[in-house]
Parts: sequence; structure tokens; C-alpha cells
Amino acid sequence: MVERLGPPLDEPIFDELAIIGVGLIGSSVARAARKRNAVRRIVLADRSQETLARAADLTLGDETTNELKVAVRNADCVLLCAPVGANEEIGGAIAPALKAGAIVSDVGSVKGAVLSALQAALPAHARLVPAHPVAGTEQSGPDAGFAALFINRWCILTPPERADPKAVERVRAFWEALGSHVQTMSAEHHDLVLAITSHVPHLIAYNIVGTAADLEEVTRSEVIKFSAGGFRDFTRIAASDPTMWRDVFLYNKDAVLEMLGRFNEDLTALQRMIRRGDGDGLFDLFTRTRAIRMGIVAEGQETSAPDFGRRGLQADEPAS
Amino acid sequence: MVERLGPPLDEPIFDELAIIGVGLIGSSVARAARKRNAVRRIVLADRSQETLARAADLTLGDETTNELKVAVRNADCVLLCAPVGANEEIGGAIAPALKAGAIVSDVGSVKGAVLSALQAALPAHARLVPAHPVAGTEQSGPDAGFAALFINRWCILTPPERADPKAVERVRAFWEALGSHVQTMSAEHHDLVLAITSHVPHLIAYNIVGTAADLEEVTRSEVIKFSAGGFRDFTRIAASDPTMWRDVFLYNKDAVLEMLGRFNEDLTALQRMIRRGDGDGLFDLFTRTRAIRMGIVAEGQETSAPDFGRRGLQADEPAS
Repeated sequence: MVERLGPPLDEPIFDELAIIGVGLIGSSVARAARKRNAVRRIVLADRSQETLARAADLTLGDETTNELKVAVRNADCVLLCAPVGANEEIGGAIAPALKAGAIVSDVGSVKGAVLSALQAALPAHARLVPAHPVAGTEQSGPDAGFAALFINRWCILTPPERADPKAVERVRAFWEALGSHVQTMSAEHHDLVLAITSHVPHLIAYNIVGTAADLEEVTRSEVIKFSAGGFRDFTRIAASDPTMWRDVFLYNKDAVLEMLGRFNEDLTALQRMIRRGDGDGLFDLFTRTRAIRMGIVAEGQETSAPDFGRRGLQADEPAS
Repeated sequence: MVERLGPPLDEPIFDELAIIGVGLIGSSVARAARKRNAVRRIVLADRSQETLARAADLTLGDETTNELKVAVRNADCVLLCAPVGANEEIGGAIAPALKAGAIVSDVGSVKGAVLSALQAALPAHARLVPAHPVAGTEQSGPDAGFAALFINRWCILTPPERADPKAVERVRAFWEALGSHVQTMSAEHHDLVLAITSHVPHLIAYNIVGTAADLEEVTRSEVIKFSAGGFRDFTRIAASDPTMWRDVFLYNKDAVLEMLGRFNEDLTALQRMIRRGDGDGLFDLFTRTRAIRMGIVAEGQETSAPDFGRRGLQADEPAS
């Protein structure tokens, strides 16, 4: 599956894009936007001088600064790419410096809490269009980003009720330029959908890796050696950025607890089947769950290669 | 990470290997054993005529049969590669036909229950050396196998107390010829270790995929589209063979319920942290879990490429 960005746009979508937070997502946006000529100029801001220096070395933007007001003063689009918990403070800091009519967007994995925090912090003239590109890897920082990250992935927009349609269209065009499919929904529904497709999966991955690490009967060396039995899959997402994920669970508490409740009910039922030796019940569930993966592969959201293609094997050419 | 089998052995380890069950594992053993000249002759048995016909088309062995007694009559090693629940019946069927001193081994993911079933079924002259290669993909059947499957993976031997040391050494040599590292432990300890590194991970993967499939508030189409947020990782192992996994949970009930109990305790503690907004507690866990993945990568049990290398990206050459 070769994934390429389209050719550079004749006319950029934004004149100046300010990216606040130059991690995996922020640096990938910068790379992809530059490659597609989706913006004329990129200003990068981060509170870490080390990250900014690295961003400058990698020439990810035209300007780097740790002054938020300087970063946004000429931007027609400001994109918040810091962990969700930092958005309220950042919103307050940039508010007085925003250009009239500037679009403010973000890439956060939680939308309800962020929407209310930013709506309160930003001036009336700013046009808020929250966004969430559902894409990433377990790695962090400006070196981990790459331009192809958003290709064929979905980006969800959750514009507030009275959002300016033109601003929404420009944000949509921007993500489409980066290779994404775009869908609009309410912040509330987004938070429920992502709780099951992203937040609870991360939670149980973190949890089982923690459980395995704390066992006394099984050594860490044994966990590592025999991880190819399935466990190692979970360690990937349990290696994701701790600050980002702490904030996700703090800010999407209600939906996560709701979905976790469902997961727990189902797990209890499954535990009961095992205790009672209900082979038919187990077999039924294990058969049903195959269909969902086939759907994900068919929709281009997953590789069809066995074992995620870990060893470079392709589904249609099994090594003899 | 290029993984190759060594050159063909000058002297095969076994004269005739009978493989009972030609699925992912059985067919991979046949391919690898042939390639390394680890056996002189391979006989394949399966209760499905379709599978046997496909095995013959793929020339995975020298002979195919659905008569278990025919399959084992000249074998100096019989390898049971059917789902764990079938071993007792297979053991009984092959018992009268086994050559004097034949080694009987298996590849099952559960060892305690299997050991007792086979010890009861087999004649005293047979030499039982149970084995478990910790390797696989989510795919099933003779077409899914490949010779490189066992390279750099661990194979666990759980010989009974009075096992013949020479038989154990030959089984060890066989798996080493297929590229595996070999470790010996008790069947009981094996079942506890695999409960946490393989069985419970599969169980919670099956469970969350089932939970997501049954939601009313979130459509199946949404689950599929936004699965790149983490959920899709779980669908891989939840697409594994239902019969094999049903048997694992029926035959390793005690250890699975024990480890599931630990998992549930830890998940309850995590749920409480979220409910109370304990950001520091979440951050601590999310930081600790990174170390285990680094250990797994360092030990060569996992790719270092981000996102399992799904898109062909290498860790050391991030796409710009």
C-alpha cells in the first residue's frame, strides 16, 4: 500500500499557519502542509527550547518561537497541537494577539471539554473549528513525525453550533490536502465514539502491561521472551505519550467510564463462560469478532498483511 | 530485520515426521523442516479432505492421509498440531500404531491438561515431549504457513518428570533447526506464563471487539472508520482461529481466571483514578509501561519500526 500526498496546490489554503506544540502530530502537519503547499508560511511554537531547536534543525517551519503571542500574530490559522490539558491556558495566552477573524483549530483526542474551554478563552472575532485527525504512532516528538501520517486516515471536525461555514470549509480543505477523509459530528458524539475506538483500547493496553509488570510468579524476562503470544501487541499503544494520554482520561472521563462499564460487563460474561466451560458461547464470540477486522481491512484502515506485516510478509505472497 | 533459516543440515534429526493437523503451525513446521533438511520424510494427516488436498497441492509433505494409524506407523516423531481439545482423542487413535520408542510431541498453547491427557492415552514405550512454539499470525490453514515463522521465536518444552533426556534433546535440536530459541519449564509454570503473555491478551481483545460490535450509540461504520485510534490493533488477535482459542480457554481455565483476576483488580484501580481525576497516578502507570516495550524490542521479539512497520516505515528513517 503505497501512500503518497498529491502534488503541491497552486493556491495555498492558509497564508500563515501557527502550530502550537511540535510533537508527533504538529511536526507531521508541518511536513505535510509544506509538501502540499497547503500554507504559505509556517510558524512553530513550543514551550521546550530543545524541541524548538530540533524543529529548526529539521527546517519544519519558517520561524520558531516560544512566545505564543509572537507565534500567532500574523496567522490566519492557529493549530493547537499540545496535549489536551494545555489548551485552556494556551487559548488564554493567544487570545489578545490573534488576528481579526483568525481560525483557531486543534488536533486533540477529546472535543467536548476542549470546546468549552476554548470558547470561553477566545475573543468573539476568532473562528473556532476543533478537529481531530485519527492518526498517530506510539512515538513522540518532532523526529517521530512524517508527512504521510494523515493519508487515508479520518479527520473529525466538531464545529460549534454557530461556527462560520467558510471557516469550517477551509479547515476541511486543509485536512483533505493532507490526505485525510473528513467527517463532521458533534463534540459529544465524537467523545463517545473515540472512547470505544481509542481511549478504552489504550486504557486496557496500559492496564495489562502494568499487570504483567507487577507479577511475582512470572518474571519480567519471561514476559518479554514469550510476548509474541499476543502481549507484545498491547505494548505498542502502551508506549504512547504519557502526558497526552493522562489528559485524554482526565478530560473525557464520562464517556470513558461509560464505555469501560460496557467492557467490564462483557468481560464478566466471558469470565463466566470460561468458569462454566461454555465452549459454544466462546466459539460464537470468537467467530463474530473476525467480521469487524475484515471490515477495517476492506475500508483501507488496516493492512491486509498477516501480523501487521511486521516481517514484511504480504497476504498474497506467503513465504514458502 | 531479515530472517533466514540456516543451510540444510547434513544429517536430518528425524527419519520420518508425522504432522497431525495441517493448519498455520503444522504447515509452517512442514515447510521449515523441509527447507532445513531437519527430517527425511514428512507425512501429513488432517481430518479435513480439503485441507489434505491443499497440502498435497502445495507439496508440503511426502504423503497425505486422513488415517491417523497410517500417518504414524513409520514415524520416529509424531507432532500433534490440532487444536488442544483434540489431543486426547488423537492420542488414543494413534496409540496402537506408534513405532516402538516413537517421540510424541505437540505445539499446543496449553500444557498441563494436555500432558495428563496424552500420558494416559499413549503406550509406555512412546516418549512424550510436549512443546509450544510461541509464534503465529492471526491467519489459519495450510496457505497461511511459512517457513520463517519460528525464527527468533521461543519454543517452550515441558517434558514430564521421567522424560527420556535423549528424546528431549532431539526435540530441542529440531526446534533450533527451525530457528527457535528453546527453554524448558514445568507444564504448570508454562500455563501461568502464557496466561498473561498470550491467553488473557487474546481474551480482552476478543472482548473489546465484541463490546464495540454490540454498541447502539456508535455504529459499526464509525467503529471501522475511526479504528486507527487504537482499536484496530485489537482486531488482529481477535481474528485468530476460534476453535483453537475456545480450547485454550477451556483447557487453561484456572491460570486464565487467576490472571484475569489480577487484570480486573488493576483495571478497577485505574477506573478509580479516572473517576477521581488522579492525573499523577495515571501518568506514573503510563510512564512505567514504556519500559516493557523497550525490553521486548531490545530482545528481538518485536520490530523497532513505529506502528509495527505497518506502512513500511523504519524507525531510523522517518519519512520527511
